[in-house]
Amino acid sequence: MAEPALKPEALCQVGFIVKDIEAAAKKYAEAFGLPVPPIIETPGYDKAKTTLDGEPSEATAKLAFFQTGQLVVELIQPDERPSVWRDFLEKNGEGVHHIAFRVDDTKATENALASFGIKTQQQGLYTDGSGMYTYVDSAPQLGVMIELLENFRK
Amino acid sequence: MAEPALKPEALCQVGFIVKDIEAAAKKYAEAFGLPVPPIIETPGYDKAKTTLDGEPSEATAKLAFFQTGQLVVELIQPDERPSVWRDFLEKNGEGVHHIAFRVDDTKATENALASFGIKTQQQGLYTDGSGMYTYVDSAPQLGVMIELLENFRK
Repeated sequence: MAEPALKPEALCQVGFIVKDIEAAAKKYAEAFGLPVPPIIETPGYDKAKTTLDGEPSEATAKLAFFQTGQLVVELIQPDERPSVWRDFLEKNGEGVHHIAFRVDDTKATENALASFGIKTQQQGLYTDGSGMYTYVDSAPQLGVMIELLENFRK
Repeated sequence: MAEPALKPEALCQVGFIVKDIEAAAKKYAEAFGLPVPPIIETPGYDKAKTTLDGEPSEATAKLAFFQTGQLVVELIQPDERPSVWRDFLEKNGEGVHHIAFRVDDTKATENALASFGIKTQQQGLYTDGSGMYTYVDSAPQLGVMIELLENFRK
């Protein structure tokens, strides 16, 4: 049997869109009994190489992360520019934006998903350049946006 | 420091509302490279003891589960009666309905969440009676409904 498009055991993150990341991070920290995490601001196109529907994009977001065993809970506050984050906030308000899977080879996973009619929407580098993320338009088929996370080999 | 209301490492499930569970289960199985799981139909009030806002409820749902390491992916197709599932489908369509945390003591967790102003909405027994579930109205504060899952001690 061929490799599946997504390895179920590679599910590693749930991402939430929030309007006010400082307030949300404080609330989650309180509920989880964890310290309030640092808020990271993603860089613009020059560093993140963000593309949206294949075109370069200056969209950024503020991010905060909580480690919860296998899963990372990610909070995302989008800026005003068009992005998969901003689009979700405008259409749905706050809520679960994506579930993410660790992948070894983004291109191969994009090809496997394309065979299901699932296409890439937004892509870019991690803030520290150590890997890349890819959001795909899986919501019509799977009910949720999927993100692929590839950590580059050192 | 007091125990947190929710242990982050106890995050154990992501639940999706779907309109057609047979079709959705097939799509997820294909994407994950897993066998199509059995579809379970939850029983009525006599067995499940379902309550909605404290009142007995005959609402049921069809369920399917995929095991993905730490996390279970749950698909839920609500029936036509009022429930937290039906309510979500009518307001949001298909999508991520809840994230679930394993708890040792539902009552104690409900009390801890009440101190954040988070109240219980729907509660009931597992289909096989081996535990209980509790949905709480955390969405306004945390951006998502939280479910508590307590497995009864044997």
